[in-house]
Amino acid sequence: MRIEAVDFFYLAMPEVTTAADGSQDAALVRVAAGGHVGWGECEAAPLPSIAAFVCPMSHGACRPVGAAVLGARLDGPADIAAIADRIARESMDLLQAAHTWSGVEMALWDLLGRARGAPVWSLLGYRRSEPKLPYASVLFGDTPAETLARGRRAVAEGFGAAKFGWGPIGRGTVAADADQFAAAREGVGPEALLMVDAGQVFGEDVEAAAARLPALADARATWFEEPFAGHAYEAYAALAARSPAVALAGGEAAHTLAMARHLMAYGGVRYIQIDTGRIGGIGPARAVAELAAARGVTFVNHTFTTHLALSASLQPYAGLADHRICEFPGAPSALAQAMVRAPIPRAADGTIRAPEAPGLGVEVDAAALRPWLVQTEITVGDRVLYRTPELA
Amino acid sequence: MRIEAVDFFYLAMPEVTTAADGSQDAALVRVAAGGHVGWGECEAAPLPSIAAFVCPMSHGACRPVGAAVLGARLDGPADIAAIADRIARESMDLLQAAHTWSGVEMALWDLLGRARGAPVWSLLGYRRSEPKLPYASVLFGDTPAETLARGRRAVAEGFGAAKFGWGPIGRGTVAADADQFAAAREGVGPEALLMVDAGQVFGEDVEAAAARLPALADARATWFEEPFAGHAYEAYAALAARSPAVALAGGEAAHTLAMARHLMAYGGVRYIQIDTGRIGGIGPARAVAELAAARGVTFVNHTFTTHLALSASLQPYAGLADHRICEFPGAPSALAQAMVRAPIPRAADGTIRAPEAPGLGVEVDAAALRPWLVQTEITVGDRVLYRTPELA
Repeated sequence: MRIEAVDFFYLAMPEVTTAADGSQDAALVRVAAGGHVGWGECEAAPLPSIAAFVCPMSHGACRPVGAAVLGARLDGPADIAAIADRIARESMDLLQAAHTWSGVEMALWDLLGRARGAPVWSLLGYRRSEPKLPYASVLFGDTPAETLARGRRAVAEGFGAAKFGWGPIGRGTVAADADQFAAAREGVGPEALLMVDAGQVFGEDVEAAAARLPALADARATWFEEPFAGHAYEAYAALAARSPAVALAGGEAAHTLAMARHLMAYGGVRYIQIDTGRIGGIGPARAVAELAAARGVTFVNHTFTTHLALSASLQPYAGLADHRICEFPGAPSALAQAMVRAPIPRAADGTIRAPEAPGLGVEVDAAALRPWLVQTEITVGDRVLYRTPELA
Repeated sequence: MRIEAVDFFYLAMPEVTTAADGSQDAALVRVAAGGHVGWGECEAAPLPSIAAFVCPMSHGACRPVGAAVLGARLDGPADIAAIADRIARESMDLLQAAHTWSGVEMALWDLLGRARGAPVWSLLGYRRSEPKLPYASVLFGDTPAETLARGRRAVAEGFGAAKFGWGPIGRGTVAADADQFAAAREGVGPEALLMVDAGQVFGEDVEAAAARLPALADARATWFEEPFAGHAYEAYAALAARSPAVALAGGEAAHTLAMARHLMAYGGVRYIQIDTGRIGGIGPARAVAELAAARGVTFVNHTFTTHLALSASLQPYAGLADHRICEFPGAPSALAQAMVRAPIPRAADGTIRAPEAPGLGVEVDAAALRPWLVQTEITVGDRVLYRTPELA
């Protein structure tokens, strides 16, 4: 097969707020080859991601992502890796390229799986799709009372684990954060796993982050996620050395395999969280899962948006039974909920699995997405480089 | 002052080739505040960089760069740092943001210097602008004979140092590369400093890079630049341990201060090369220069394009007399040559200095650039988010 077409769709809610809710818009990707179609999604700003696919070449090491994809061969996983290698060389100086390519890569795996009648995880070499324990991923409330209510709701919805993130954490006093952590624990009850996500709020300030450790330990947090900026390996290492009780987690910002490796090797995280919509897709995420397993680090997906993204992010570690926790979008936007015809189901015991159906195993509901489609056009010189395609 | 306007201009040569020549297009930035104007340049793909300035917000941590810049206060260097901090938080998930912001940041320093009648380096705390030894930065020829001729030309043009990069290096045999290195040395003669840039061609393959070390030592190369991918710190460290004679250099890919720090701390480079048009501008580049000086690493600018970019890249280490080498665009495009009215002059002894004139000390020749202006328009929904402004 040759890759015949790659179409981007910019989808957005009518109103986008400053909440740290990544499900408010989407950069959806459709690829076509050999009579098959595949779907993927960049966890990224849609307009710059589209621009990085269609932009004119700046020079030999700053070419658009599209140059390496359109017309390329697609007969097996090695062909996807070959395109990734080409982008690493020929789009080296195009920073946005990794985010753009991530959604395309995912769609190529989906297409390849559909063409072969096989789930993506089997193409990755896994024999079976292991059950994962989903945690409801929600934002902290503005007040402890709101946080407590969100915790109760997660448990009522059948989740045995919940993660609270962002909101006021790190912006007020240590005592205020302690109240939030305690409220989260009270909300989910004594049995559930509880995780806390600081959303990089401490920058590289180790002392400020360390001041939160006692309350996190009191709340029996399984991990303390992204206390620092994505590249702040030294700060991660310093905090890890001071935190025997609460493990550190991070990695969602990784836009290369090397960044994830460094967060483990230099930063000392014990949970590595990968967004296949940012790191370059399923291939590099799978490589991180292998590295993590070899190091005794637990791999976790990062997914805050749709069940298309959720399936893609489960594939890289679908067959690793010991890496059991998985992020599950807890309160996605109406747009994100409309993305696939049927969400990935939770079993009676609350677990989920990467689907058995071919490709990514979810069906994008193109017609249902039309209300959120944002008509976009980019003209450079006398050429229209991009115009929103038909979403049929 | 408040920042009243930020205008991007996409400039390009009529034909852009796959040569590793970053001067074939440009993302020029003009800022206006308090009746003053400043100019900067992103060393980046123009279209995605513009898109990252104007795009709609995706969520609270994925806002356009423009949201943090337009209307912001600009009364001193601390205000520029405050905008940078805001972008780090609020555009955290917008990968292209660092490249976009770099050109804007540079323009803000230019404007601030002009408003105060002071060169940027003085605003950075330097007492004087020290002389730098420019090296002609050119590409390897396809054959050793071409490379030799380019070396002779550099010396004939008065350069006491030359760097050869990219081209066939690493793509053929070890012996072929050795012939190229020897030709470069023969071309520049026994006295000149000679540097070699591999353009990341070895990926993370330490053995392949190490195989080139004996010939580099024979050619008395001062440094071996970017043998590996920008994030491949482990490979840098492994090669550095095997290369006592030839120092490693790198850093141009750094789009955060942390990446540059890691290349020194983990990768063991002895020359850290920073492009102010990528790392987030002059502020973080200045911070890298301080870190480098403290570690005994030599700071070098990365500049392959215009004398606007050259001035901006000299400012961060203008006052560091011991960090003496500087990259000087050896064969820039006609567009890059037209960017400023008068290039930064070389003194009788061949050295250059960051200009004494206010701001960046070079005058952008807007009228001369009009032939290269690429009319661009971006529409999202019913709003024109970008249309090429008047280049007056």
